[in-house]
Amino acid sequence: MNFTIQNVLIAVEEAYLTVDVQVVDGKIAAIAPDLNLIGTAVDGSNKLLLPGFINAHTHSSEMWQRGIMSIFPLELWLAELYDFAPLDLEKVYLSALGTAVETLLSGGTSVVDHLVLTPGLELQTIATAVRAYREVGIRAFIAPLIQDESLTAGIPAGNSVQNHDPYFRSTAATLEIIEAAVKQFHRPEEGVSILVAPTGIQLCSDALFSGCIDLSDRYNLSRHAHLLETKAQEKLAQEKYGCTAVEHLQRIGYLSDRTSLAHCIWLNDTDISILAQTQSTVVHNPLSNLRLGSGIAPILKYLQAGVNVCFGCDGAASNDSQDLLEAIKIGSILHNITDLDYQNWITPRKAVEMASLGGAKGLNIADKIGSLDLGKQADLVLYDLTNLSLLPRTDPIGLLVLGRPTNVVHSAWVNGQQIVTNNQVNTINVDNLRQELFKHSQWETKRKSESVEKIETHYRQVMDF
Amino acid sequence: MNFTIQNVLIAVEEAYLTVDVQVVDGKIAAIAPDLNLIGTAVDGSNKLLLPGFINAHTHSSEMWQRGIMSIFPLELWLAELYDFAPLDLEKVYLSALGTAVETLLSGGTSVVDHLVLTPGLELQTIATAVRAYREVGIRAFIAPLIQDESLTAGIPAGNSVQNHDPYFRSTAATLEIIEAAVKQFHRPEEGVSILVAPTGIQLCSDALFSGCIDLSDRYNLSRHAHLLETKAQEKLAQEKYGCTAVEHLQRIGYLSDRTSLAHCIWLNDTDISILAQTQSTVVHNPLSNLRLGSGIAPILKYLQAGVNVCFGCDGAASNDSQDLLEAIKIGSILHNITDLDYQNWITPRKAVEMASLGGAKGLNIADKIGSLDLGKQADLVLYDLTNLSLLPRTDPIGLLVLGRPTNVVHSAWVNGQQIVTNNQVNTINVDNLRQELFKHSQWETKRKSESVEKIETHYRQVMDF
Repeated sequence: MNFTIQNVLIAVEEAYLTVDVQVVDGKIAAIAPDLNLIGTAVDGSNKLLLPGFINAHTHSSEMWQRGIMSIFPLELWLAELYDFAPLDLEKVYLSALGTAVETLLSGGTSVVDHLVLTPGLELQTIATAVRAYREVGIRAFIAPLIQDESLTAGIPAGNSVQNHDPYFRSTAATLEIIEAAVKQFHRPEEGVSILVAPTGIQLCSDALFSGCIDLSDRYNLSRHAHLLETKAQEKLAQEKYGCTAVEHLQRIGYLSDRTSLAHCIWLNDTDISILAQTQSTVVHNPLSNLRLGSGIAPILKYLQAGVNVCFGCDGAASNDSQDLLEAIKIGSILHNITDLDYQNWITPRKAVEMASLGGAKGLNIADKIGSLDLGKQADLVLYDLTNLSLLPRTDPIGLLVLGRPTNVVHSAWVNGQQIVTNNQVNTINVDNLRQELFKHSQWETKRKSESVEKIETHYRQVMDF
Repeated sequence: MNFTIQNVLIAVEEAYLTVDVQVVDGKIAAIAPDLNLIGTAVDGSNKLLLPGFINAHTHSSEMWQRGIMSIFPLELWLAELYDFAPLDLEKVYLSALGTAVETLLSGGTSVVDHLVLTPGLELQTIATAVRAYREVGIRAFIAPLIQDESLTAGIPAGNSVQNHDPYFRSTAATLEIIEAAVKQFHRPEEGVSILVAPTGIQLCSDALFSGCIDLSDRYNLSRHAHLLETKAQEKLAQEKYGCTAVEHLQRIGYLSDRTSLAHCIWLNDTDISILAQTQSTVVHNPLSNLRLGSGIAPILKYLQAGVNVCFGCDGAASNDSQDLLEAIKIGSILHNITDLDYQNWITPRKAVEMASLGGAKGLNIADKIGSLDLGKQADLVLYDLTNLSLLPRTDPIGLLVLGRPTNVVHSAWVNGQQIVTNNQVNTINVDNLRQELFKHSQWETKRKSESVEKIETHYRQVMDF
């Protein structure tokens, strides 16, 4: 369906222009003042048009545990999370819908779902998420979360001798699942991509990483992983490899210009230059990094070193919302306390570029989305600047990034298809979703995690508490 | 007007109870399951009742500059702010309304407005804010922002010799204005209080502080000020007094159990024990502290030392929203990176207590508001737990504090008077306010601040950039 957005504000250099934007066959066909009307007219007056943002790292099914997780660091938090992970496909479906809706209504048109797989139902889990994202119409990058070591292996041993149960599934069987998923679901031109996505060095063998590299090369898949989220993982890498995790990942060939790495907090200067050199992308998840006490990722250093950086919400169990504008705001201003010289700070315009083009680069799709350029796919978001939360009128992008916008996404398109209209997702029944989420849950307070009880003493010891 | 909230969730110990809450003559009269209906029935089912929060530090008229301020540290930011400060009373009125609305719709029932006074129209400025807050019905603590030194005096001299213009109004004349404001507007029982509020050691003489102490003692006024927001102010205190700002404020008698101090970032351990000993209150403004790169206030240390802590949004020019739930979320999780031991971290329940009872303590009004206790004034907020942003159902307070709630304030009462109904402020016409804010403003980009040009070179020098 073709359309023309009329009299809309767009950002150029350090100013704004009022223009018309023509979209033909799902692509941006023209941007200029006073264009002829092609297709449907969309009133852009008092609105701002931006490229859709990319929610570049999340775990959709964590939505079932938001608000309830203990105030723990990652290692204990993960133990609690796994004790209460939802297993049924109905929940997988509903939380994927919920994640898509929250991403869309905060300016995101793409989501990278580092998807937790239900044991024994791995392909069905992926199929369920694919179904949800196709129904909503959001551009989906499904990164099935895999590992081949059991949870306790993710904690440094320190001076103790630790024995870990073998993981319940072989490395080969895991790789077969991913290859089957690629064959069944990887349809980039239809808006659904599969990524290879070992969870990270803390729970994955070299064999698993190598198998993922092989799949990535054979099927042209982007690569994803967590990287050095905690100080414990920094210690673990030294125990496991005798070098940093980044050095090891470079050595085995996992880093590339289509590799995106979530968190990247505990990197040294050499590690940073390796990321720059390999053109890897950092996905910044500021809120989850604060909630889990993981630390502040050295984002200003990354930008200065020329490393591509984008934003993710992370799963709702570690950042209990999926609001990209919140992640962009906090992920920008947080770093002002890490460098006294304000000339290095992230401006709102820079943050918008990181959230859109930065995200696209990390997924190796910057030639297709991420900016308002002619010929690119129309993944677009139209913001209503008359909303109380964006008033009084000043700098639209400043208000959007530094304020706390509420109900401001007027319209959103993916591949030129409109999926948000008047601040409502129009492809699914959101009120029905709301009722289903309500029905499948109950109010709770603190829960008792058996896994946490098992590992807490060792964790406190090895972390010197 | 009397009413009974029926079947509502309230927090007790580590659990929730479903109860009825009777409000009679503006006070909480009974809390228990299955009470008799007194007055109007309010349906509390699937809702959470909390005491109203206190937005314990803001500057309402900064709303006119939100989104547009340069990404600067405080000293330069302040110079830019003053170059473009709005002067007319119509704008003062509209931004006070806007601040009240955003505070209310994020769970606040009280606001401390460190109000910038229009030169020559000081009492009129205060009268205008009083009128706005009375119309909305929010509990207002108006802290007229005063100083008696000119802006450049707020920057450390370093090795240079600096001459500063005298301030345009005498210390005595300023104190006379405050006393007149107290006589005209200080009506705590009607929900409007005047505070003494010198802006801080960086721009105030000891004579001004002493005059404020005298007024505070004579009229039983709470005391407010900024304190050690930046590293530059830490340096300045040493230049000015040869000791820390806290030591100096203690020496001149400004610290007390009715003194609340905004920011408190650059304090040492001795300073912290002085705050504890004097029972002073810290107002934590996490978002503005990040945006201005001021630093992370050592909130976990304050709590461990027994210092009372509450939350503020700060003005919308340094945190471009007035959403208390955002300040509470970031002000809680931010500190997890300052102390590796998670047993010291702020829980959602603790955060709620800080935002309500903590705020009340800082204003010397904890006997009247701040908790759901019998006999206290009914400053109450009812949250709709069926909102998509609070689903699926888990721990209600966890969802509220750690999520990103949107449109969740169903009802709010101040002194038992309902001023929010069905997520709408019912005392003023908010759509009309929205149109007025739109009409009085225009889209802008970067502005040229002459004051910044004058002081930037010296600032960079003295800060060693």
